[in-house]
Amino acid sequence: MFIKDYAFIGCSSDFKEASIVVFGAPYDGTTTYRPGARFAPQKIRSESNAGIETFSPYQNKDLEDIKVHDAGDLDLPFGNCERALSMIEQAAGRILEAGKFPVMLGGEHLITFGAFRAIIKKHPDAAIIHFDAHTDLRDDYIGEKLSHSTVIRRCFDLMKKDAKGRAAVYQFGIRSGRGEEFGFAAKYTNLTKNNFDNLDAAIKSIGSRPVYFTIDLDVLDPSEFPGTGTPEAGGVRFLQLLEATIKVFSKLNVVGCDINELSPPNDPSGVSAALACKFLREVLLAKR
Amino acid sequence: MFIKDYAFIGCSSDFKEASIVVFGAPYDGTTTYRPGARFAPQKIRSESNAGIETFSPYQNKDLEDIKVHDAGDLDLPFGNCERALSMIEQAAGRILEAGKFPVMLGGEHLITFGAFRAIIKKHPDAAIIHFDAHTDLRDDYIGEKLSHSTVIRRCFDLMKKDAKGRAAVYQFGIRSGRGEEFGFAAKYTNLTKNNFDNLDAAIKSIGSRPVYFTIDLDVLDPSEFPGTGTPEAGGVRFLQLLEATIKVFSKLNVVGCDINELSPPNDPSGVSAALACKFLREVLLAKR
Amino acid sequence: MFIKDYAFIGCSSDFKEASIVVFGAPYDGTTTYRPGARFAPQKIRSESNAGIETFSPYQNKDLEDIKVHDAGDLDLPFGNCERALSMIEQAAGRILEAGKFPVMLGGEHLITFGAFRAIIKKHPDAAIIHFDAHTDLRDDYIGEKLSHSTVIRRCFDLMKKDAKGRAAVYQFGIRSGRGEEFGFAAKYTNLTKNNFDNLDAAIKSIGSRPVYFTIDLDVLDPSEFPGTGTPEAGGVRFLQLLEATIKVFSKLNVVGCDINELSPPNDPSGVSAALACKFLREVLLAKR
Amino acid sequence: MFIKDYAFIGCSSDFKEASIVVFGAPYDGTTTYRPGARFAPQKIRSESNAGIETFSPYQNKDLEDIKVHDAGDLDLPFGNCERALSMIEQAAGRILEAGKFPVMLGGEHLITFGAFRAIIKKHPDAAIIHFDAHTDLRDDYIGEKLSHSTVIRRCFDLMKKDAKGRAAVYQFGIRSGRGEEFGFAAKYTNLTKNNFDNLDAAIKSIGSRPVYFTIDLDVLDPSEFPGTGTPEAGGVRFLQLLEATIKVFSKLNVVGCDINELSPPNDPSGVSAALACKFLREVLLAKR
Amino acid sequence: MFIKDYAFIGCSSDFKEASIVVFGAPYDGTTTYRPGARFAPQKIRSESNAGIETFSPYQNKDLEDIKVHDAGDLDLPFGNCERALSMIEQAAGRILEAGKFPVMLGGEHLITFGAFRAIIKKHPDAAIIHFDAHTDLRDDYIGEKLSHSTVIRRCFDLMKKDAKGRAAVYQFGIRSGRGEEFGFAAKYTNLTKNNFDNLDAAIKSIGSRPVYFTIDLDVLDPSEFPGTGTPEAGGVRFLQLLEATIKVFSKLNVVGCDINELSPPNDPSGVSAALACKFLREVLLAKR
Amino acid sequence: MFIKDYAFIGCSSDFKEASIVVFGAPYDGTTTYRPGARFAPQKIRSESNAGIETFSPYQNKDLEDIKVHDAGDLDLPFGNCERALSMIEQAAGRILEAGKFPVMLGGEHLITFGAFRAIIKKHPDAAIIHFDAHTDLRDDYIGEKLSHSTVIRRCFDLMKKDAKGRAAVYQFGIRSGRGEEFGFAAKYTNLTKNNFDNLDAAIKSIGSRPVYFTIDLDVLDPSEFPGTGTPEAGGVRFLQLLEATIKVFSKLNVVGCDINELSPPNDPSGVSAALACKFLREVLLAKR
Repeated sequence: MFIKDYAFIGCSSDFKEASIVVFGAPYDGTTTYRPGARFAPQKIRSESNAGIETFSPYQNKDLEDIKVHDAGDLDLPFGNCERALSMIEQAAGRILEAGKFPVMLGGEHLITFGAFRAIIKKHPDAAIIHFDAHTDLRDDYIGEKLSHSTVIRRCFDLMKKDAKGRAAVYQFGIRSGRGEEFGFAAKYTNLTKNNFDNLDAAIKSIGSRPVYFTIDLDVLDPSEFPGTGTPEAGGVRFLQLLEATIKVFSKLNVVGCDINELSPPNDPSGVSAALACKFLREVLLAKR
Repeated sequence: MFIKDYAFIGCSSDFKEASIVVFGAPYDGTTTYRPGARFAPQKIRSESNAGIETFSPYQNKDLEDIKVHDAGDLDLPFGNCERALSMIEQAAGRILEAGKFPVMLGGEHLITFGAFRAIIKKHPDAAIIHFDAHTDLRDDYIGEKLSHSTVIRRCFDLMKKDAKGRAAVYQFGIRSGRGEEFGFAAKYTNLTKNNFDNLDAAIKSIGSRPVYFTIDLDVLDPSEFPGTGTPEAGGVRFLQLLEATIKVFSKLNVVGCDINELSPPNDPSGVSAALACKFLREVLLAKR
Repeated sequence: MFIKDYAFIGCSSDFKEASIVVFGAPYDGTTTYRPGARFAPQKIRSESNAGIETFSPYQNKDLEDIKVHDAGDLDLPFGNCERALSMIEQAAGRILEAGKFPVMLGGEHLITFGAFRAIIKKHPDAAIIHFDAHTDLRDDYIGEKLSHSTVIRRCFDLMKKDAKGRAAVYQFGIRSGRGEEFGFAAKYTNLTKNNFDNLDAAIKSIGSRPVYFTIDLDVLDPSEFPGTGTPEAGGVRFLQLLEATIKVFSKLNVVGCDINELSPPNDPSGVSAALACKFLREVLLAKR
Repeated sequence: MFIKDYAFIGCSSDFKEASIVVFGAPYDGTTTYRPGARFAPQKIRSESNAGIETFSPYQNKDLEDIKVHDAGDLDLPFGNCERALSMIEQAAGRILEAGKFPVMLGGEHLITFGAFRAIIKKHPDAAIIHFDAHTDLRDDYIGEKLSHSTVIRRCFDLMKKDAKGRAAVYQFGIRSGRGEEFGFAAKYTNLTKNNFDNLDAAIKSIGSRPVYFTIDLDVLDPSEFPGTGTPEAGGVRFLQLLEATIKVFSKLNVVGCDINELSPPNDPSGVSAALACKFLREVLLAKR
Repeated sequence: MFIKDYAFIGCSSDFKEASIVVFGAPYDGTTTYRPGARFAPQKIRSESNAGIETFSPYQNKDLEDIKVHDAGDLDLPFGNCERALSMIEQAAGRILEAGKFPVMLGGEHLITFGAFRAIIKKHPDAAIIHFDAHTDLRDDYIGEKLSHSTVIRRCFDLMKKDAKGRAAVYQFGIRSGRGEEFGFAAKYTNLTKNNFDNLDAAIKSIGSRPVYFTIDLDVLDPSEFPGTGTPEAGGVRFLQLLEATIKVFSKLNVVGCDINELSPPNDPSGVSAALACKFLREVLLAKR
Repeated sequence: MFIKDYAFIGCSSDFKEASIVVFGAPYDGTTTYRPGARFAPQKIRSESNAGIETFSPYQNKDLEDIKVHDAGDLDLPFGNCERALSMIEQAAGRILEAGKFPVMLGGEHLITFGAFRAIIKKHPDAAIIHFDAHTDLRDDYIGEKLSHSTVIRRCFDLMKKDAKGRAAVYQFGIRSGRGEEFGFAAKYTNLTKNNFDNLDAAIKSIGSRPVYFTIDLDVLDPSEFPGTGTPEAGGVRFLQLLEATIKVFSKLNVVGCDINELSPPNDPSGVSAALACKFLREVLLAKR
């Protein structure tokens, strides 16, 4: 008679029976400009039940036919980002240990570092696919090593390098950063500006290695996704993101992923939250 | 590790052990002007966990010391208001049958009629205490008998009358209505304009009769509670409402109550939702 | 000296002299998620006088050179959707009887059912062209037969069927629905996902039959039209919609049309209302 | 069948039969900070029909029992404030010549100067009652003589002076201005800070002289009336304003009035527009 | 220790050493519909420091490698547009006299006329490149010669004409105007509807003549740039605007430019301000 | 000709000549609910120049007659609150060493702890006057010692105690907290609920001791000050706060103060920012 299920739509399986586990990391403690990504996981859950269907006409699949558990949100301390990252690492680790696929909802992009520490422990040769408007390759931000703008650099630090010091980081859609970050990328990562043009080559190069897939939703054009802290004109469109995402999941051995940087307070019309819900559905259905 | 409880703060008792049961009636299907009250119950729950404490410095009591069950929301059809009212009546009835005290969260004011039908079945001589800016005594609205603006009239229709046709309806804070509604009130109800001046007299007059207590939050001044569909200047202040409410609960045999007409889309600053959370806490603690 | 004309820009002809009659059906009583479409007709009128010109550089035509009457809005009861539909049917019927072309402004999509009942009475073999993001083919919604999500199914029920039970319903731009709705469409309607790809074939197939043309503006991408109740990423662009619309009007015998689902409260920047004004101008000019 | 009347609620009398004429002066061309008062007259009209009743429980009177004509809005050029003032003067003059009482809706406060030029022509000894948060007594603003912040000074210039150079300007609720403006007021006008304390004395002093009554709604506390260009904390409350206004109308020979500085874009919750509607109703009913 | 620099990011050179001078003309006094462009220059400055980098991955250049002076804003009187234009003319003239390149930030489009008067004095044969959604070729607006909707016509009046009365005005992206404005353009200017299709031809035709480049940001599609007074669907995309702008600067002798019509109050998500910051960076880097 | 001064209105004195130094601490890194206080100092500065005058009609004083330096904002790292506090301590210390009076603008309330560490070094017997809606006496928040909700407890830890362990902390306006916080206050501080009733007694008790004065603006009623992270109904009014504040400054030896918790993103109407500007002016003028 009463409705009490606030899980993401179609994700009401128990932890045990589920092969995919969704959880929220509502942290935006290092956001330097417009905070608010902390509210994303709860927004995505509540919007999903009213705004989208469980069926995808793109993939002809239905969430009701797969087993997903929505674990809820972590309770993270804003003033202590190292401790927040440890809690995230522990949560992601627990899901990985149980043999399940973690899908983490940010929060700001720094949360990726917490999850990736759990990934790299289990998969020391993990590669990274990174969709974003920003390089996120700074070495520090006002002296701080842990920041949304350093997160890929911090992940890079943990990864295996080849003889030239390069790591298997593949970045797409990038259109903002300092000159030195683009310089760093030219030497040590694989960066594609503005779009997904080299995705096929990246997929070929990665082969069967385990892959962590981190998606900063500001890779989208601000016209389609205004609700984010640092909107950056000239981005990709939803259908392009969808196609690239389905390709990554279908061609690669993705072992974990996150979707981050929806900022509900900066989304007055609600279109960004609606898109995030739809995109999460597609991600859950795309995971082979 | 994960947070999954979306109940109103401090209301996580089971139905069985609880003496008070909170439930949402997220219906605003007859709202003629600015809809949005449908979003109130979910908003009140989520705001409560972040925005208020369980302890009341006004009553020196704590929600953690009493037993309240938050049952969740009814799933009501917007286009069929008679069916929505039946579902509400059934839900309130079930709570009453279990010997518990129902606290219903609107939604628009018409929901009161559903709950009151359950009340009057169990308590045929129930009186009504009605806090509101509006008389709600129209006989119809564009020909419709069921409307937020007719709700007290519909309740009146079900109540026992004295020889002069008067019913035990006590209205406070009223400052808007048609001339004929004020005329009706002068003959058949007890209406106090603008404030709670005659509350003591009403309490004395009601004595030990069972009382249904319906609180339209637009009784508050729009400065303190802007987030409602039809804000009406010249209302009471929060501390006045709080004092009057505590008095009603402590002096009378209240058998059911509702709090309605918070409209989150009309509350851009969030102060109305915050006030509603705080007020609900005080109501739960005031029920003797 | 004073301005008192609140009609849509350039639509100040009398009913008698007009060949096209615009009227508003400000009803959103079955909207399940974010209400507000009720405010669209008034918003479109007031914005049009300040925000757009009467001249179309796309069609090189001017509203001042044709005769359009803006009849104003119907006064519809929110709590009683059957009665609202009857009032709409009656209004559309009166315009049709007078030999004029009705252009109805929603409101939510259910209003189409009212107008279509008038159409089918006069044109029993009418076909439907349906632009939308959603299938709208549910048989019921929480048990209710009348809903914005069942409207095309209800129209289908009234239409002539061929031997296989198919009706002349042509749907375009669709990208959301339940699996069973897409299944129904595969059997009984003609559904084109995401875009207008098969429009030429549909036009050919329809030939000279009378056509009712219903345009749910959420067929547009939410980036261009955020102001709607259930925005759905991956939609068409304005210029595509414009081209398809002009084609429908120039190639087919359109006997009535509606434009629905603008929701001003969900349009904080105002771009959706501005687009709706411009689109209505083009529709009025496109009608041959 | 269709609704087409966009006049202020209850003001549908013809010009001829009306004793009161309402008109809008949607001008905010000299607003230095947050513009938007230009949208007030249209907002007040549309809100009134949905948000308030014609009956006043404060005065026990009903708009349906008096004769008011709503003339619509003037079409004023924003870049040329002298021409805008002339058009206002002409409009007010025409109403005065017809022996009717003009109620002008701003717009910014400078519009008062246009109306007052018409008043002073007919009533050379007119006094001014001025409710406002600001002195509006600057002699110029960045070199400009015509500005919302000079408007009372400009009116003063036209008025008769006594031997000491004082004019019959009575200012109430004032709580902001330059030091020299308060100095000017001390010498040449009658200024009451913050409230209406000296209103009785002013009424006595004015006696039977004709009075122009100009009400800048920012005299209200921003908590009750946030929707204005320059909100100023520490203002009067609605019920105080209402009482003072009714007193002015009942005790004095008011020959014209205006209500100005509602700024809808700065009123996101809508409470200010709702209050303005209610206040205008009370003004229309208070005019003896 | 303290941050006090509120200049546009990377523009902290002194006037003397700078080759480019940015200044704000925060005027929107003739805006007829939704005002707010007055707030653009301050918004662009403050957003730039938090939201963008000094490095352009599009041009591989960095603001830190060039010399730009941000002069601040002019203090313009809203009620007197002729005086405002004179102040703008004087400011632009001073920059030109110093041999520097002026980049003016609006404000509404009328400000262009002030700057162009300074340009035409120094460069009597100057051509105009005009990016806009609107023709801006009216001869007057409600009788006023100076208006945002007449600005290109007023510039045209000052320019040299050929034997047929044509001037070197090249308009792109245009998709709104009166019929007679398009007629005027067909005779006397070079107007390209909707896009930049004929830009190469225009560049060839202009050759080495000095060019004033005026960019009304509403040339962009409202999906990418909602924050403007009169959004007009069907516009160009950011990357198209960027490409066209870089082409103009690299191929032509641009002697001054302006960027106008960002209206922060109509940009609730902030994406328009963010885009404007990024675009200004690209303009500063594109100037050869 | 150009305006470039973005200091708080009337605060353009040099550091050397000033007796009062205003600076911003734009930090909200431990805010648990709705962030945004980081934007307050910049908002207060920009609003002040447009929205208020330098003259106070309450105190009959003018900012132009005193010497105040606006030092700008600190550049604080969000993810590292200990380092942020050290930077604040250093800044406040430098001002104190120069013999000047520091006025710090938050930011969230935790910033007080940074400034108070500088105060207590210079004035080991400093008392605290604390205006707030919340006790801020938690010992930790989710295990963190540094939080906006522990700030007065952390200050208390540094202060001298009497024989019963009590410190000279005087709290006013408090109306929210955990039960144990009110218990702590009853034992170790001086807490006045809801209002300023015991202020005279506190002043008498403090005598000539140096006083740090910390003002959390959420002590105000949310109707007057909605723009804060955790609005709490039942607060004091502006004129009460003003009177109490002037009393503190005139009767006590205040050696430093801060004004915190304005959150501009939660202030859609702008009234809270306007009030904060006015209040800061009064504070600067009240400091004897």
